[in-house]
Amino acid sequence: MPDAPVFQPADPGFEARVRASFARQTAMTTIGATMVRAEPGEVEVQLPWAAHLTQQHGFLHGGIIGAALDSACGYAGSTLMPAEVGVLSIEYKINFVAPARGQRFRMVGTVVKPGRTITVVEGRAFAVEDGREKLVATMSTTLMVVAGRDDVKH
Amino acid sequence: MPDAPVFQPADPGFEARVRASFARQTAMTTIGATMVRAEPGEVEVQLPWAAHLTQQHGFLHGGIIGAALDSACGYAGSTLMPAEVGVLSIEYKINFVAPARGQRFRMVGTVVKPGRTITVVEGRAFAVEDGREKLVATMSTTLMVVAGRDDVKH
Amino acid sequence: MPDAPVFQPADPGFEARVRASFARQTAMTTIGATMVRAEPGEVEVQLPWAAHLTQQHGFLHGGIIGAALDSACGYAGSTLMPAEVGVLSIEYKINFVAPARGQRFRMVGTVVKPGRTITVVEGRAFAVEDGREKLVATMSTTLMVVAGRDDVKH
Amino acid sequence: MPDAPVFQPADPGFEARVRASFARQTAMTTIGATMVRAEPGEVEVQLPWAAHLTQQHGFLHGGIIGAALDSACGYAGSTLMPAEVGVLSIEYKINFVAPARGQRFRMVGTVVKPGRTITVVEGRAFAVEDGREKLVATMSTTLMVVAGRDDVKH
Repeated sequence: MPDAPVFQPADPGFEARVRASFARQTAMTTIGATMVRAEPGEVEVQLPWAAHLTQQHGFLHGGIIGAALDSACGYAGSTLMPAEVGVLSIEYKINFVAPARGQRFRMVGTVVKPGRTITVVEGRAFAVEDGREKLVATMSTTLMVVAGRDDVKH
Repeated sequence: MPDAPVFQPADPGFEARVRASFARQTAMTTIGATMVRAEPGEVEVQLPWAAHLTQQHGFLHGGIIGAALDSACGYAGSTLMPAEVGVLSIEYKINFVAPARGQRFRMVGTVVKPGRTITVVEGRAFAVEDGREKLVATMSTTLMVVAGRDDVKH
Repeated sequence: MPDAPVFQPADPGFEARVRASFARQTAMTTIGATMVRAEPGEVEVQLPWAAHLTQQHGFLHGGIIGAALDSACGYAGSTLMPAEVGVLSIEYKINFVAPARGQRFRMVGTVVKPGRTITVVEGRAFAVEDGREKLVATMSTTLMVVAGRDDVKH
Repeated sequence: MPDAPVFQPADPGFEARVRASFARQTAMTTIGATMVRAEPGEVEVQLPWAAHLTQQHGFLHGGIIGAALDSACGYAGSTLMPAEVGVLSIEYKINFVAPARGQRFRMVGTVVKPGRTITVVEGRAFAVEDGREKLVATMSTTLMVVAGRDDVKH
């Protein structure tokens, strides 16, 4: 396949902007997620396993993996957007490819195709168990740019 | 379209079983979700808006809606399964159709097609704001029945 | 669940418009699909089984079912749109719930949530075999309204 | 991200097997698709633009791109499977990221995670216009291995 594209951010202050916005997502604080990397077109979020986030067998709940990946993908798209617009996830699909067994989890969102109105992003979730990393989920997300609305900014 | 099918549960004790399993999902406790209804092929989960579950604008985080819908859909499938098997969500897709603005949220999972190995379920999330209800998200989910594994039961 | 919404078409001439547009889709002619019904928010497309449209076991190819459902869903959304705009499918997901065994197939697209920019539609594909009808696939689709582009109209 | 995995095919005769099976898909013949490459975990299908496969504006119909990508993804999974099993697409999702404008199209399916029962594959569709190649669609697919059924083989 052709090489992955190199993206030029429209907003030179994108990193501070997406980090500040992520910090306002109380849902991410509740699940213990932190943004560890924000580059043009790619964002990484990490979270540790936690006893208050499991499904019935003690593994991390798939929906929590989905929530963290959703944020990683949304902010990956946001890194390439102008400072003044807002961004909405209009849909995502997640495939669970292995049990989410691990001490901590790494979610990476990567822009596939940026656009003025619609941006498509893909995500990967990895579980880290005893130092070994395993792919546990994949995501594809459609983002929509929203301009001129005070309730959807950054 | 043809009428919705009427489902016969394979396990007469399905309601107690799915309620007990849901109660073990600490992620659902953390987000304040309760199972309010479990019928053959349909499960309803509710949760109130909460300050610790928002995205950056103060609305309920889309990923949290996804997590609650995922549980509603998974247990909707589980109501029709034999007592001894486990069930895994192998994928889901969620479309966000309106901002998740409301005081509380209702998630309904409904089986579209049960199967021995694969079951397909659809979900609807509604926001209740000042007594009015609005559709905010739709989901489709693929579940897989897993037999004979101690780490995937109920 | 609440009753399905009743939709008011913005364009009183929607039916002639969507039928004329469908007739220009040579792909639909090639697969033998006809639009048998176009109502506000719902469109039905039918096609017979055909020897030139199969997968390796002689059943209708899943991708052909997807193509016909995609058209049914796209035009279902189009029935509610103003006469002068265009509409694009920006994504769809299809779940195959039973083998596509039958003499003919019925695809129904139904609008879940219309919008100025984004419309969400759901589809159902049924196989008719010896007079009995069976659900074989479900779809969810996101449509985007495109205005002011000559290459995307109707 | 970690390097892409290197896959070992279970069936040394996989290439002849998947090419023979693809050749039995009359739907692929009808749309002019040919399998140009079959490696362990990756399959490429190509097709030219054709006047009988368009949507209403003369571009290749999105559903036809979906059908060709579905075959590329399904056979990518099949390259890694034992000779005697069958494979079913149980769902796929396609995102259209650019208009399908071009003289010919390249579809590449790549296995993300093979499994005994469930295999997840991703696809990319490229349009080639005047010698330049552009990404036009992405897909993610879930395949299920089916053993012991005469109507689902290869």
